[in-house]
Amino acid sequence: MIETIQVKQITLKTAKIMIERAIIKAKETEVPVVVSIVDRGGNLLAMERMDDAFVTSIDIANNKAYTSWALRCGTDEMSKVIQPGESLYGLNLTNNARIVCFGGGFPIIVDGQVIGAIGVSGGSVEEDMAIAKAGLEIL
Amino acid sequence: MIETIQVKQITLKTAKIMIERAIIKAKETEVPVVVSIVDRGGNLLAMERMDDAFVTSIDIANNKAYTSWALRCGTDEMSKVIQPGESLYGLNLTNNARIVCFGGGFPIIVDGQVIGAIGVSGGSVEEDMAIAKAGLEIL
Amino acid sequence: MIETIQVKQITLKTAKIMIERAIIKAKETEVPVVVSIVDRGGNLLAMERMDDAFVTSIDIANNKAYTSWALRCGTDEMSKVIQPGESLYGLNLTNNARIVCFGGGFPIIVDGQVIGAIGVSGGSVEEDMAIAKAGLEIL
Amino acid sequence: MIETIQVKQITLKTAKIMIERAIIKAKETEVPVVVSIVDRGGNLLAMERMDDAFVTSIDIANNKAYTSWALRCGTDEMSKVIQPGESLYGLNLTNNARIVCFGGGFPIIVDGQVIGAIGVSGGSVEEDMAIAKAGLEIL
Repeated sequence: MIETIQVKQITLKTAKIMIERAIIKAKETEVPVVVSIVDRGGNLLAMERMDDAFVTSIDIANNKAYTSWALRCGTDEMSKVIQPGESLYGLNLTNNARIVCFGGGFPIIVDGQVIGAIGVSGGSVEEDMAIAKAGLEIL
Repeated sequence: MIETIQVKQITLKTAKIMIERAIIKAKETEVPVVVSIVDRGGNLLAMERMDDAFVTSIDIANNKAYTSWALRCGTDEMSKVIQPGESLYGLNLTNNARIVCFGGGFPIIVDGQVIGAIGVSGGSVEEDMAIAKAGLEIL
Repeated sequence: MIETIQVKQITLKTAKIMIERAIIKAKETEVPVVVSIVDRGGNLLAMERMDDAFVTSIDIANNKAYTSWALRCGTDEMSKVIQPGESLYGLNLTNNARIVCFGGGFPIIVDGQVIGAIGVSGGSVEEDMAIAKAGLEIL
Repeated sequence: MIETIQVKQITLKTAKIMIERAIIKAKETEVPVVVSIVDRGGNLLAMERMDDAFVTSIDIANNKAYTSWALRCGTDEMSKVIQPGESLYGLNLTNNARIVCFGGGFPIIVDGQVIGAIGVSGGSVEEDMAIAKAGLEIL
């Protein structure tokens, strides 16, 4: 017997709208950022680097998206458990250090399913989180 | 001792238009691809993966753009010299194998300056090249 | 759509003078170091390892220069925010751990533009910082 | 019993003279290159990237020096044995692909001892080899 399930998936069209909304918010707050979207396989679907955003934010935005997709929660929620003395200290060294545990990544959840994730990098953690949330507002 | 020069630079806005044009061409030829643009520092500015494009094309499109930026020529021009018995056999293993030497990457040249590059992956080499060229037509 | 801007750029000649000045300072303080200079693209322009400097300082000096170029500040300025419990704890694991967040790297800033960076490694943080600053004195 | 041997080692001073000679030759032939010198441990001692040299030549010059130090011969001598069907096909994939097997790297040999190596990248294989040899002429 071959089991099948119905799943939802995010399209490039949706990813681009989310990036657009996030960048509108970034411009309002005057913070140049990188915005990345991964799909339900955790693979990059689209990314944009605003003029003047840090080059290092490319990797960070991609991996915030990857992390929140993989762990099915906001990257900010992981920051406590990886501290020295806490239960998952060192988690962010695993998976070739692709696990980024400071805020700015959120899963894209539809009907309880994680169908992708958004990652933002370039500003403070609070700014990145607010910009990523703006991208998710279309949900 | 500090030289001053005039340089041109590509903006995110221009990168997105190039990607849009390339994707129009990709849809016409019914080939789902990844399109990547790097800036004058060789760093990723924007990328989009069409629905159904190969996941492996993310790395290839990014690195075709990187390669044509770095070597200042189309990636197709490098395919001969890296063949067995040729002078640069093994070149594509250097730089952590980021050097991709089959067609689909072209430098973005304005007034003789390489100000970035485009990389396309997903179809045959000929298709990728035609799609990348469509992206460059706005120049 | 193609912007034109004026940029300044550092030449190999300037990079070598900076390294020479840094090494004079290093000899005065009797600390063998590696001194690295990256250009406005963040790519290595020149590096010298003094006789008896640590081999591990090659990577550290290169990446201190890379980090201060990328983040546009001294590497010492990043050391607080990456501590346990702070907002960017784990930042130095990103970008393949090329982000070095202890002192010894400084951006080379001319007319408000980051045109490169210097990185020094081999002594204590204070010594590395003093040696790197000596390299920047020609500005 | 602790066995000791007398070995020669290359100094930074010598490395810089070799680089200077190589760059004079590169300027004569109008080929911008990267020149790298490794010491008797195979670790980078000094490197210089001429203005306008390829960014990708940094890695290649460093690894040509590394390869000719490690294998104790010119990198050009390795190009035959790594060809398809030959005995060491795939050798250049080993050691994290640091083995570069096209010409431009030579060991620095004094009294029959390999005390370091020079690597040059940026031009054709023939140009790189001629420039590297110019660096070795002080021996």
